[in-house]
Amino acid sequence: MAHSAWCPARAQQLKCFMGSLVQGRHPQPGSHSFNHKRWMCAAAPATQEAPAAQQQQKQQKQQHAKGSNKQKGGSDKAITPKSEDYSRWYLDIVREAQLADYGPVRGTMVIRPYGYAIWEGIQRHLDAEFKATGHQNAYFPQLIPLSFLNKEADHVEGFAPELCLVTKAGGKELEEPLVVRPTSETMVNHMFAQWVQSHRDLPLLLNQWGNVHRWEMRTRPFLRTTEFLWQEGHTAHATAEEAEEEARKMIGVYRDFAVNVAGIPVVAGRKSRIESFAGADITYTIEGMMGDRRALQAGTSHNLGTNFAKAFGTTFLDEQGQQQPVHQTSWGLSTRMVGGVIMTHGDDAGLRLPPALAPIQVVIVPITKKDADVESVLSAARKLQATLVAADIRCKLDERLDQSPGFKYNDYEMRGVPVRVEVGPRDVAQSACVTARRDQPGKQGKTFGVSMEAEAFTAHIHELLASIQESLLQEAIAFRDANIVDVSSFDDLKQAVAEGRWARGPWAGNDADEEKVKQETQATLRCFPFDQPADRGTCFYTGSSNAETAIFAKAY
Amino acid sequence: MAHSAWCPARAQQLKCFMGSLVQGRHPQPGSHSFNHKRWMCAAAPATQEAPAAQQQQKQQKQQHAKGSNKQKGGSDKAITPKSEDYSRWYLDIVREAQLADYGPVRGTMVIRPYGYAIWEGIQRHLDAEFKATGHQNAYFPQLIPLSFLNKEADHVEGFAPELCLVTKAGGKELEEPLVVRPTSETMVNHMFAQWVQSHRDLPLLLNQWGNVHRWEMRTRPFLRTTEFLWQEGHTAHATAEEAEEEARKMIGVYRDFAVNVAGIPVVAGRKSRIESFAGADITYTIEGMMGDRRALQAGTSHNLGTNFAKAFGTTFLDEQGQQQPVHQTSWGLSTRMVGGVIMTHGDDAGLRLPPALAPIQVVIVPITKKDADVESVLSAARKLQATLVAADIRCKLDERLDQSPGFKYNDYEMRGVPVRVEVGPRDVAQSACVTARRDQPGKQGKTFGVSMEAEAFTAHIHELLASIQESLLQEAIAFRDANIVDVSSFDDLKQAVAEGRWARGPWAGNDADEEKVKQETQATLRCFPFDQPADRGTCFYTGSSNAETAIFAKAY
Repeated sequence: MAHSAWCPARAQQLKCFMGSLVQGRHPQPGSHSFNHKRWMCAAAPATQEAPAAQQQQKQQKQQHAKGSNKQKGGSDKAITPKSEDYSRWYLDIVREAQLADYGPVRGTMVIRPYGYAIWEGIQRHLDAEFKATGHQNAYFPQLIPLSFLNKEADHVEGFAPELCLVTKAGGKELEEPLVVRPTSETMVNHMFAQWVQSHRDLPLLLNQWGNVHRWEMRTRPFLRTTEFLWQEGHTAHATAEEAEEEARKMIGVYRDFAVNVAGIPVVAGRKSRIESFAGADITYTIEGMMGDRRALQAGTSHNLGTNFAKAFGTTFLDEQGQQQPVHQTSWGLSTRMVGGVIMTHGDDAGLRLPPALAPIQVVIVPITKKDADVESVLSAARKLQATLVAADIRCKLDERLDQSPGFKYNDYEMRGVPVRVEVGPRDVAQSACVTARRDQPGKQGKTFGVSMEAEAFTAHIHELLASIQESLLQEAIAFRDANIVDVSSFDDLKQAVAEGRWARGPWAGNDADEEKVKQETQATLRCFPFDQPADRGTCFYTGSSNAETAIFAKAY
Repeated sequence: MAHSAWCPARAQQLKCFMGSLVQGRHPQPGSHSFNHKRWMCAAAPATQEAPAAQQQQKQQKQQHAKGSNKQKGGSDKAITPKSEDYSRWYLDIVREAQLADYGPVRGTMVIRPYGYAIWEGIQRHLDAEFKATGHQNAYFPQLIPLSFLNKEADHVEGFAPELCLVTKAGGKELEEPLVVRPTSETMVNHMFAQWVQSHRDLPLLLNQWGNVHRWEMRTRPFLRTTEFLWQEGHTAHATAEEAEEEARKMIGVYRDFAVNVAGIPVVAGRKSRIESFAGADITYTIEGMMGDRRALQAGTSHNLGTNFAKAFGTTFLDEQGQQQPVHQTSWGLSTRMVGGVIMTHGDDAGLRLPPALAPIQVVIVPITKKDADVESVLSAARKLQATLVAADIRCKLDERLDQSPGFKYNDYEMRGVPVRVEVGPRDVAQSACVTARRDQPGKQGKTFGVSMEAEAFTAHIHELLASIQESLLQEAIAFRDANIVDVSSFDDLKQAVAEGRWARGPWAGNDADEEKVKQETQATLRCFPFDQPADRGTCFYTGSSNAETAIFAKAY
């Protein structure tokens, strides 16, 4: 056995990450039967092949440009324009990009490989960050005795309406129903109460990747489903200060992930009391503005105080020999984030994926017009792919000969692949290829005469990916900032919300005031942003002074 | 944004893999309260500190050797010797190494960070292998309409006694109970039937990581729990030949993983009809011999034929325009593998982890006898850690000053860390340290005067890890081969089984014969190994000729 016999497997894993996705078959969009009724949209015709690339071209620019121009004809048919019907647009993308499908039980979804690969990207980044901040993964049982939930009054009140209950098992009626976890604070406390004895056992910093169930009334793929995948962090600390620091640290981890990886310029802040987690003292949130300007709560971090600790007797002997309840946090981010990515970056041609999350960062499309070209073009394309894979870039080469380049352009645009590389016989002859950016349609996003020499090619692709990552974020920031209105009266708020925008202004109302705003406008208090003006203002609703700035918006 | 702005995160992930575990706190064994009754063993006293390393030592050899010698006194108290009570030994390790704890619901377990990190290692290796063999991950809903299970007669018969049923959700009684998945063939077929239309949609090669529930009567942590984590692969093919090839390929992936990564020299083969999966035409298995010589079925791969396809109408239009049922496979490997690792390699001092799976491959223990040593020793130790981390070796430096080196030696032995590095003031002065192998106790496994120069040190550690990986496997192979008895009569089998060994011999009995052997000996037909003698033999039970060689053993 060689002295690093297990290292190749780990190195291979990095390279193989997404490997099968990158190399895998992927069926023609629209080729599968589909339960259209449940997606609330009419049957979508199969994407048409674009015939352009089958024609002879004289010039590289002409040739590549036409391939791209024609593509619009194909994908527009499958995806409803955003402006026409945003909700249909969203569902069309989920279906056509094969991100998810409906399960047989109401409100459930099947996450298909391309959608799951985006989730794997989310997991990859977050898991590394959790570990870097000192957390360890663990796994707690999914079935929770119903009596556990009853121990924390606010918690059970918040979750009771949505619970799924196992009442029979092993052919018998159970004495006590078991809850299919909607979240794990109660189970975690049952165990923490056994594990924590002394201050030396603290802090306890755990995370769990798993599934949860909430029997929701109105569901939508990724955004709200009966079952979803998520991670839930659970920590216990000796002091209130440490717990508060942890809760804020983890919302910071979510914010950094959302901004730097998912390209979603979320607003981080504190939830109002009535919007907080059932059982928390304080809930922090990241709120993203979607393409229809509705807010999406994309991750939350809770300072649970001693609420669960007192209910479950999770206490420790402090340095003075006194029994004290632990101070706790919990924090979660779910497959909902996939929906946030779609709705932040998608356009009428389909998905646009930030390179850091894209399962396929670069697709290479060979252009062969006659059989004689095939060998030399494929050989050059394979070399380019190998170059990028060696540089840890997730690259797919689409070698299918029975699909035209134009069809492939459509397909990968719809699937949001950030960079396309086109290689034709002329390119091979000139040792230069063409790249196209997903975020800049047409010629504008193309670079001609890109050297196929490994180092130069890799550097060009790296630059493109970084530029796309940054430009998607900047576009989303500009959109967000153009759609937040500073308000100083309730009428201002009503107008802003009626226009579909976010309203930001000083707020000192009580719970009842907040409910009234919601009833009258359908807008909810999304958060008190961490980023506050230097001076407190006068509440636009109650006229009270010393008001903290809040954001109100319609939300998912 | 720099041109490779997202790459650091990925690179960091590799380095951070297990990072928090490696750096994290880990409480003193036995310091937590524990529900001893449910672990079927008496309360274990906290491991004692070994005082040896607190004494002054003159010679490097003496000093390091005594630290190691004393440790036995500590950990032996916590773990029942294998020879005394194998079952208690197993549960002691699971508890003392903090691999798992019991959940509140009968038969459930909590997988604690150290146990979960072993599972993450299993996932890391298998997931890379699945992707390298063309599979993609996906996620199917956990709740399955009960009627789905009823569609495949054998399947429901096999699983009905173990089902957990959700009968209430969202505050209402459900019209149809939902099964908490025990396995997903039915759900998968419901979706495959929608996704597969033509031969161009095949093969479909999916895998799912998730949890399943089976309401078992007798449970034991990792080996058999009400809920467990696993992966389940599900594939559909156009021909019977392809499905058979896939089922065999995946049992091969499991075998290679078990042997090369987990160091478990499993026997791969075919299950008898009565031991096959409910709904399969053929089940392939890998069977490991545990330390008590009982067999553990550690992974299975099923050729499902067209059984589910016919029940669910999963058909495709073949190239001749005919509707045909797809040919399917499914294959799964679970957290049970963690139990297999414990029972294959563990000894009376605790766990022994194969380096490829060990969450901590190397632990560095600084030895400081007076305050003046601390700075120089810790500084040298940190440099060694950085060297190994840079070489992608999972290395922990235990800087705790309130625990003696001897206590730490015990602790990491019990936790199965393959290599220990000892660094004292003399070592620093001589620029050479001491390494100790977990698999070779005492002086025999120690190397003195190991250069602390980065390249030489890394090479030495790489060699040690490779050598330990190989030597654990060879030890297990020798144990297995010494405990398989070739039998030519039923009396031979009875004797072999009575001695606790495996019986291997030609078998041509029918289902009833197999049941009789089981009733009389408690041994079951584990498999017909792929590795068969050149000629078929005469059945040791029926006397029929042309008998295939089978293995019988008592099993978990």
